[in-house]
Amino acid sequence: MPIDARSPKEIRADIRRGAITGVTAGLAPGFVQANLAVLPRDAAYDFLLFCQRNPRPCPLIEVTDAGSPEPVGVAPGADLRTDIPRYRIYKDGVLADEVTDITPFWRDDLVSFLLGCSFTFEWALLDAGIPMRHIEQGKNVAMWKTSVECRPAGRFHGPMVVSMRPIPQGMLSKAVTASARYPNAHGAPVQIGDPAVLGIKDVTRPDWGDFVGIQSGEVPVFWACGVTPQAVALASKPEFMITHSPGSMFITDVPNHQLAAI
Amino acid sequence: MPIDARSPKEIRADIRRGAITGVTAGLAPGFVQANLAVLPRDAAYDFLLFCQRNPRPCPLIEVTDAGSPEPVGVAPGADLRTDIPRYRIYKDGVLADEVTDITPFWRDDLVSFLLGCSFTFEWALLDAGIPMRHIEQGKNVAMWKTSVECRPAGRFHGPMVVSMRPIPQGMLSKAVTASARYPNAHGAPVQIGDPAVLGIKDVTRPDWGDFVGIQSGEVPVFWACGVTPQAVALASKPEFMITHSPGSMFITDVPNHQLAAI
Repeated sequence: MPIDARSPKEIRADIRRGAITGVTAGLAPGFVQANLAVLPRDAAYDFLLFCQRNPRPCPLIEVTDAGSPEPVGVAPGADLRTDIPRYRIYKDGVLADEVTDITPFWRDDLVSFLLGCSFTFEWALLDAGIPMRHIEQGKNVAMWKTSVECRPAGRFHGPMVVSMRPIPQGMLSKAVTASARYPNAHGAPVQIGDPAVLGIKDVTRPDWGDFVGIQSGEVPVFWACGVTPQAVALASKPEFMITHSPGSMFITDVPNHQLAAI
Repeated sequence: MPIDARSPKEIRADIRRGAITGVTAGLAPGFVQANLAVLPRDAAYDFLLFCQRNPRPCPLIEVTDAGSPEPVGVAPGADLRTDIPRYRIYKDGVLADEVTDITPFWRDDLVSFLLGCSFTFEWALLDAGIPMRHIEQGKNVAMWKTSVECRPAGRFHGPMVVSMRPIPQGMLSKAVTASARYPNAHGAPVQIGDPAVLGIKDVTRPDWGDFVGIQSGEVPVFWACGVTPQAVALASKPEFMITHSPGSMFITDVPNHQLAAI
């Protein structure tokens, strides 16, 4: 994975002028990256409540004022309409467009939600000496829709989505403690070793992403996944919604370690 | 302080039938008690956002569906209209009544917010061997309005309120780690030792509660206080609002240790 260790602000400037349009893995390492969900104000209360009730899959790190594209809490001066490499536009729950600038789509009633992402806890796991095979192999993490229902809020309801990483048996405890420190990036695993508890019938066939194998002496470990809020929001077929494109996250000014609960 | 170690459910039943109408300190020890704020749905989005933006003073542990008095997440079967000993009714931001049952005031558009309270972290401090003088003396904790502004949200804005406890100098570190585990009960201190940083001119004269002295070898330690959200909400003069009466909290079914971040 190529590393671009410039500051978040410098990298966002490159994204804004169209010089970076791909995925953000490896950009500004050490800084929190975030999932984006943009909804009209009339859907924002239910979505905010849904996130409050389901903090494991939906860890809110910023909610903008309606109409304002500036995430003042995590990146003052940034513009959420231009500072993400690639966006998806949904109309009535259906993908309508993929763009690199949402300025033409902006409305005064839009509220932007930024949610913590797995990059932060993967950084913590790697830092603790735990290998991440999907990163080594340059693949997407494996993800499943589970049989665990989120707590509903208004129009939003649906199952929790999880991601799976194979962890060496002797490193299980370390994997829990390292990720648990970051509840705003999905926190501790939701399941260790038993996919059936989550309603996952075949751990070799993910619903999204790539299966990277579970070797002898490794245990499948499942974390709540940031795909959950997007899947739940789209399932309710909102009149209008914007998200980041997969892997093209918003890069904040917040150092990963600042997200630690303790 | 007299202790009533029955279950939260048994104690709530006594409260519901009017047999307990006072403060809840010492009732169901070991279980999370919560502050109550009830607002009409049209003010609820701004309040929810305010809490999300100011988690230290406003740690949300439950938000009910509009019109429902049942806090299903923390006490299924309970009724927030009857299961708190004493309530305050505010109209246009002015105290209009104090009652033991809000059923006659209930409306289909009311949303109830339950917020973590200092009882949980005081329990953690006591458990760590740290004395709490205001409890020993049967007094109210000392509180101040600070010069630290909360991050505003819509109609809600105002200063953070803090509480102060004198801590023996050799126990400072323990006081931080013990309370930091409970971010949903205000978490770690916001200031250790320097009231002036918070705009507090005279640490012997609190805005609310009682000064219990700072003895030689003790340091004043300040925590964010649950009075903040109530003060901020009332300052915006909401058309209608209900809160618990001071010290008469809602007793949840959640054990204190379950609120620990790690």
